[in-house]
Amino acid sequence: MLPAIPPLADAALARQLQEAIDNKTKPLGALGRLEQLALQLGLIQHTRAPRISQPQIRVFAADHGLSRHGVSAYPGAVTAQMVHNFLNQGAAINVFARQHGIALRVVDAGVDAEFAEHPLLLNHKIRRGSRDALHEAAMTRDECIRALQAGMSVVERMPGNLLIVGDMGIGNTSAASLLLARLGELPLSLCIGRGTGLDDEGLARKQDILCRVLARHPQAQAPLDTLAAFGGLEIAMMAGALIMAASQRRVLLMDGFIAGTALLVAERLAPGVRDYAVFAHRSGEPGHRQLLALLNAEPLLDLGMRLGEGSAAALAYPLLLSAAAFLEEMASFDSAGISRQEQAPC
Amino acid sequence: MLPAIPPLADAALARQLQEAIDNKTKPLGALGRLEQLALQLGLIQHTRAPRISQPQIRVFAADHGLSRHGVSAYPGAVTAQMVHNFLNQGAAINVFARQHGIALRVVDAGVDAEFAEHPLLLNHKIRRGSRDALHEAAMTRDECIRALQAGMSVVERMPGNLLIVGDMGIGNTSAASLLLARLGELPLSLCIGRGTGLDDEGLARKQDILCRVLARHPQAQAPLDTLAAFGGLEIAMMAGALIMAASQRRVLLMDGFIAGTALLVAERLAPGVRDYAVFAHRSGEPGHRQLLALLNAEPLLDLGMRLGEGSAAALAYPLLLSAAAFLEEMASFDSAGISRQEQAPC
Repeated sequence: MLPAIPPLADAALARQLQEAIDNKTKPLGALGRLEQLALQLGLIQHTRAPRISQPQIRVFAADHGLSRHGVSAYPGAVTAQMVHNFLNQGAAINVFARQHGIALRVVDAGVDAEFAEHPLLLNHKIRRGSRDALHEAAMTRDECIRALQAGMSVVERMPGNLLIVGDMGIGNTSAASLLLARLGELPLSLCIGRGTGLDDEGLARKQDILCRVLARHPQAQAPLDTLAAFGGLEIAMMAGALIMAASQRRVLLMDGFIAGTALLVAERLAPGVRDYAVFAHRSGEPGHRQLLALLNAEPLLDLGMRLGEGSAAALAYPLLLSAAAFLEEMASFDSAGISRQEQAPC
Repeated sequence: MLPAIPPLADAALARQLQEAIDNKTKPLGALGRLEQLALQLGLIQHTRAPRISQPQIRVFAADHGLSRHGVSAYPGAVTAQMVHNFLNQGAAINVFARQHGIALRVVDAGVDAEFAEHPLLLNHKIRRGSRDALHEAAMTRDECIRALQAGMSVVERMPGNLLIVGDMGIGNTSAASLLLARLGELPLSLCIGRGTGLDDEGLARKQDILCRVLARHPQAQAPLDTLAAFGGLEIAMMAGALIMAASQRRVLLMDGFIAGTALLVAERLAPGVRDYAVFAHRSGEPGHRQLLALLNAEPLLDLGMRLGEGSAAALAYPLLLSAAAFLEEMASFDSAGISRQEQAPC
């Protein structure tokens, strides 16, 4: 059912790219992380001249059965309100996508509301919100598979070679924390945070409820079962989107905690996806630190952001353009006639 | 002689800006450092609607008398070669400036070579390289003052409201380390690094020579005397540029170690300049960490870069646009009809 992920490793190409990077008119390694990024872009696109074209953001929105238990600082109705905000160009991700010329579509993965047709809205609603994971699996196996497939179909014929997946869903840090705790075999307490802004009491309540949810689904251990048990619909759809995008050798520019959890799921379902990922930032949500460690990921930005929507990925996007640009446009020592570093005489 | 720096503090405006930021459709504080940046931009431009226009990079180039002592991994001739590279659009800063539409000019502050006229080159050469600080002051008092004045004149009638100062000068991390050690009253060993790539032996030689240079100028304690004693010509000119730019309420988007040292000098000569500074990155050069602490600065990027030229500042530039853009363009909770965070009932 899942497409194959092409392996990234190519020692000969990596050597050619590294030589090109080292021959640019700058001290060896002086562009730091940007140099590794240029190398990774080359490997992903399987070329010595990587170039980003027609970048795309897909914001996946869904509601969560768990949100009725007060696991978020905001009421569930905000998910649908924010979808309208996206469609009206008023949210942070709209601003940053516009700034950088990144095409944006909103995917209704399972919002608990009905929307009129809109040119920016893709309707892939599986159901109006995931089920209450405190009492049953957040998705049936069938719903979960349909969500993954919908995510793949969203990406399959999409233009461009770079994908940002963004999220909107009141309650979705709870689903992400549960997925991370189970798939990463981590203590739940390390995976939980204040989400959109819980106070101490709210955080304690969230911890209590999520602990009960974890205990409710001991049989959920395999990746697909875990995803179905804890949700959410948007996370499943994002995982499908990431798998398809990696299978097509697109760059995955990863946002924060929710998108990162979707990547963890994707990697477990289709090993190799992670190699296509560039990690935009370290979120202020504590679980994201665990997730990055688990994925052996070093993010580009660390600005204390915790908004989701793909917003931090959009902010990091120009750094990818810079990486491709220095590789393509900078002069080499030879072409510029510049003296090299003085070699030791012996 | 030096222009006045307008104080930034304005409690009423700060309150208005913070309210506008908090009313945007996002959880409180969820845009992290970008929110502080929006506030600072508003205070610098003294408006509730800050906007960046016609951003400018000035790359200041000069040679250093100390470079004859082998304090750099590259020969002094590279300074002039890199000036040609800038003029031919082949250096990293050319690539990033082009990417972001930042106008670039190269300022010859004191390169040990003669250049033909070029539309991108501003000739403010004080002399062909600073003097050898191991034997005399790197600049006479008169040369130092002329360099500061030239920096001010470079900026005074420049268009736009944002300035990046970049540096090029083989040997200039030595001058920067000396200035930092003396002005910051820090042990020299904490202020020294490998520059463009010294090996262990070269680093030990640099440490030894700079230690002797510091001991050679015990009377250099006041900011102007210190600047004259240790140089370089490009650092003095950058300091003048920063002072003039702050006096005109321009945003100072700071690059790494060399530019930062120029800011330290500028702040000591004209207190208040630092408040106009946004710190683009933490350089891989160890002294920069000390410098940032001294200036109470938290940089935006930490990508292990150590190139200079203004390159990291150019990379961080889109983040400033994002800060201004979210403040101007995002919907507020009221305008978008979105429910606010649930208040505690008591």
